[in-house]
Amino acid sequence: MALVVQKYGGSSVANAERVKRVAERVVQAKKNGHDVVVVVSAMGDTTDDLLDQAEQITADPPGRELDMLLTAGERISMALLAIAISVHGYQARSFTGSQAGVITTSSHGKARIIDVTPGRLRSALDEGSIVIVAGFQGVSQDTKDITTLGRGGSDTTAVAVAAALQADVCEIYTDVDGVFTADPRIVPNARRLDTVTYEEMLELAACGAKVLMLRCVEYARRYGIPVHVRSSYSQLPGTTVTGSMEDLTVEQAIISGVAHDRSEGKITVYGVPDRPGEAAQLFRVLADAEINIDMIVQNVSGAASKLADISFTLPKADGPTALAALEKVKNTVGFDHVEFDQHIGKVSLVGAGMRSHPGVSARFFGALADAGVNLELISTSEIRISVVCRDTDLDLAVRAVHDAFELGSDVEAVVYGGTGR
Amino acid sequence: MALVVQKYGGSSVANAERVKRVAERVVQAKKNGHDVVVVVSAMGDTTDDLLDQAEQITADPPGRELDMLLTAGERISMALLAIAISVHGYQARSFTGSQAGVITTSSHGKARIIDVTPGRLRSALDEGSIVIVAGFQGVSQDTKDITTLGRGGSDTTAVAVAAALQADVCEIYTDVDGVFTADPRIVPNARRLDTVTYEEMLELAACGAKVLMLRCVEYARRYGIPVHVRSSYSQLPGTTVTGSMEDLTVEQAIISGVAHDRSEGKITVYGVPDRPGEAAQLFRVLADAEINIDMIVQNVSGAASKLADISFTLPKADGPTALAALEKVKNTVGFDHVEFDQHIGKVSLVGAGMRSHPGVSARFFGALADAGVNLELISTSEIRISVVCRDTDLDLAVRAVHDAFELGSDVEAVVYGGTGR
Repeated sequence: MALVVQKYGGSSVANAERVKRVAERVVQAKKNGHDVVVVVSAMGDTTDDLLDQAEQITADPPGRELDMLLTAGERISMALLAIAISVHGYQARSFTGSQAGVITTSSHGKARIIDVTPGRLRSALDEGSIVIVAGFQGVSQDTKDITTLGRGGSDTTAVAVAAALQADVCEIYTDVDGVFTADPRIVPNARRLDTVTYEEMLELAACGAKVLMLRCVEYARRYGIPVHVRSSYSQLPGTTVTGSMEDLTVEQAIISGVAHDRSEGKITVYGVPDRPGEAAQLFRVLADAEINIDMIVQNVSGAASKLADISFTLPKADGPTALAALEKVKNTVGFDHVEFDQHIGKVSLVGAGMRSHPGVSARFFGALADAGVNLELISTSEIRISVVCRDTDLDLAVRAVHDAFELGSDVEAVVYGGTGR
Repeated sequence: MALVVQKYGGSSVANAERVKRVAERVVQAKKNGHDVVVVVSAMGDTTDDLLDQAEQITADPPGRELDMLLTAGERISMALLAIAISVHGYQARSFTGSQAGVITTSSHGKARIIDVTPGRLRSALDEGSIVIVAGFQGVSQDTKDITTLGRGGSDTTAVAVAAALQADVCEIYTDVDGVFTADPRIVPNARRLDTVTYEEMLELAACGAKVLMLRCVEYARRYGIPVHVRSSYSQLPGTTVTGSMEDLTVEQAIISGVAHDRSEGKITVYGVPDRPGEAAQLFRVLADAEINIDMIVQNVSGAASKLADISFTLPKADGPTALAALEKVKNTVGFDHVEFDQHIGKVSLVGAGMRSHPGVSARFFGALADAGVNLELISTSEIRISVVCRDTDLDLAVRAVHDAFELGSDVEAVVYGGTGR
C-alpha cells in the first residue's frame, strides 16, 4: 500500500461531469489499496470570473481581500469532488489550505510555502478517509491571513503536501499526456518522455515549458518526491520526473527536449558609458523594482567611444515598469536611450547528457543557421543552450532544432485545450 | 462613539453595484464616528447556484462537504465588500465564521451557535479597521469542521457577534422597511411599527413573519441586544426590537400585528383508541423523526366508540416523513387511517397588551365569523391567538383581523423583492 498524492487542474474539474470522472479515478486508486490525497484547483474559469467581479469594483483591490475572494474557487471544487466521491460509498474530507496546515509567507497573491503541518490530513487518512486539499492557497505564518501562491500554485501545494506526508509519489493530472520533447502544437511528431530528471525539468520549466511550474519542480527536487505528470483524460503512462543527474546512466538520451517561450520582451539600453559600475547601477534599479531579468548581453559599440549597448530579456508584462525605473536613472548613469522590443522568442535545448557531449552546440547552431534563423542573444548553462530570435522565426527554430537532434517519434501527439493553474 | 453591527442580506449585495452601495452606507457609519462590524450573506442566488451544482452530482450530499461548499458564498460577498470599502480609503478586513470565532454545534446545515470568541475582530477594530464577518457560518466545537446555521443564519450571526462584542445596536438591513402590522402584499395599508418587544417579535416570527428568524430574536432577547430592522434601499427609520414585556407602559398599543403562514400542512390521524398513552405514542414517533409539531387538536368522535381523531400542523416539507413514521406504528397504536392536508393557512394576532385586555378574543373571532372564514384549529398563548383555516381564505382572514383591530395607516407600504438568508 502506497500513499499517493494526486493533483487535478482547473480544466479537469471544469463541470459536474468532469468532477464525477475525477472522483472515479480517485476511488480507483483507493480501491487499488492506496491512501489517497487529492489536491484540486478551482473549476475551469472560476478564478477569472472572481477576478472579473473584483475588477467591476476597482482595478486595485487590496491583496488580503483578493486572496480571500479567490480562495472561494478551490473551496467549491474540493467540496463538489468530496460529494462526488461519497456517491461511490467512500468517505472524503476536504480541507482548505489553512486547515491542511499549508503555512506560507504573507505576500498576498504570490505567497511561498514555508511549511506544511499535516496533522489533520494524517488523522483523516488514518480514519480511512480520502483526503482532499485546496490547491493554490495557504495561511500566512505571521498574520494568520488567507494567502494564495500565484501561478502554478496548486502543483506546488501537491508536491509540498506529498513531501510533508512522505508520500510515495505525486501525480499531476493535466490536459497533456506528459512532458514532450517539444510543444506538440509546434512539432506534431514531438515524443513523450518516459522520465526526465529534476534538473532537466527545472531548465525546461524555466525556458517556457508550461507543463510544470518552476517552483513545484524545485520543491520536488529538494524533498526527493517523484512527480508523475499524466493526462486526466486518458490512461496513458505520462512522464516521471525523478532522480538527479548523478543517477544518469550512459544509455540516457543526451537531449531531453526543446522548450520555447513567447512571454518575454527585450530591452536594450543604448550608449551606456563603459565604466565599471554603470551596468551594476542599471541592474540595481531593476532589482529594486522587483523585475526578474533573464538573459543579458553587452556590446561595446566601439573602442574609441567607450560606450556600450546592454540588452536583457524580461517578462513582457514587466516592460513598462522596467522602462520607468530606467528612465529615473537616465541622467545619473548617462545612457543615451532605451528601446523595448516585444517581438522576440526564445528557444532552448535541454539535456543532462549535454555536458559530456561536446558536439551539441555545433549541431544546435548549425541547425538554426541552415534554417536561416538570425540569433540576437545567446545564453548557456551546463545542461542548456538558449537563444533569442524574432518571434516570427520561433516555430521554425523549434522544428529545426528538434529535427537536428532526431527527437521526434513516429506517432503524432494528441493536443488538448488550455491549462489550469 | 458607538459600536454598531450591521447585517446585509443576499439581495442587498446581489451584484457589484449593490455591493458598492452597501460599502457607502458602511463608510458613512464609520465617518459618523462609529466602530463598524458588518455581517454579510452570500450574494443573491449564489447559495441556490451552489446547491444546484451539488445536486447535479447527488441528491444526498454529505453535510460536512455541503457546508464547505455553501460557505464559499459569503466568502465571495465579504471579500468584494471589503474591496469596495477600500475604494473609499478605509481599511476593511473580512473574516470567515471560523476566523471570527463563531463556535457552533457540529450539526451540519442547522448548526447552533455555542459561543463567539471575537479576539481577532476586536484586534481589527482596535486597529481602526472596518470588520466584515461572513454570516450563516461557523466552526464546530468538537471537530473543527466548517458548519452552516440554516435559514436566517446570517441574522443570528449578526446578533451573536453583537452580543460578543457588547455592541450598542445590531442593524438588520433587509428588503422591507421594517416590521409591519401585517404583510403589505396582503394588506396594502399595513403600518410599520416603530418598536416591538422581543416577546412580540418571537411570536410574530414563530407565526410566519419572515422579517426576522426566531433564533435570531431569541439570541437578541437573551443578551439584551437592541435589533434595528431597516431597509437597505432607503433611509427610512425602520423598526426597533427591544425591551421586554415588563417595560411596557399602559400607553403601548394592545396589538402589534397580524402574522400569517402558508408553509404548514395538517395531518389528521383518524380512529385513535381513546386510551391514556396512545397520543403520546404517536408524538413520540414523530419526535424521533425530528419533526416539529406546531398546533394539536383532539376530537373524541363519540363516547360509545371510544375513538378519537387527532390533528396537528407541521412544516409541509416534513409531511412525507411524518406519514412514513406514523405508518410504522399503525398496528401497535391501532388507529384507522391518516390524512395529509396541504391546503391550510394560519393567521395569528400578536400583542403584548392582549393579556390585560379581555375583549381581544371576542373581537378576533367575531371578525373572522363576519368574514365567513371557517376555523379548523385554534391555539393561544398569553400574547397570541392563532387559527388555521383553508389556504384560500387566508388573505381574507388576515385583512378582516387587521381591519377589526384598526391596525392600518393612511399610507400604502412599499413592497420590494425576495428575502436573503
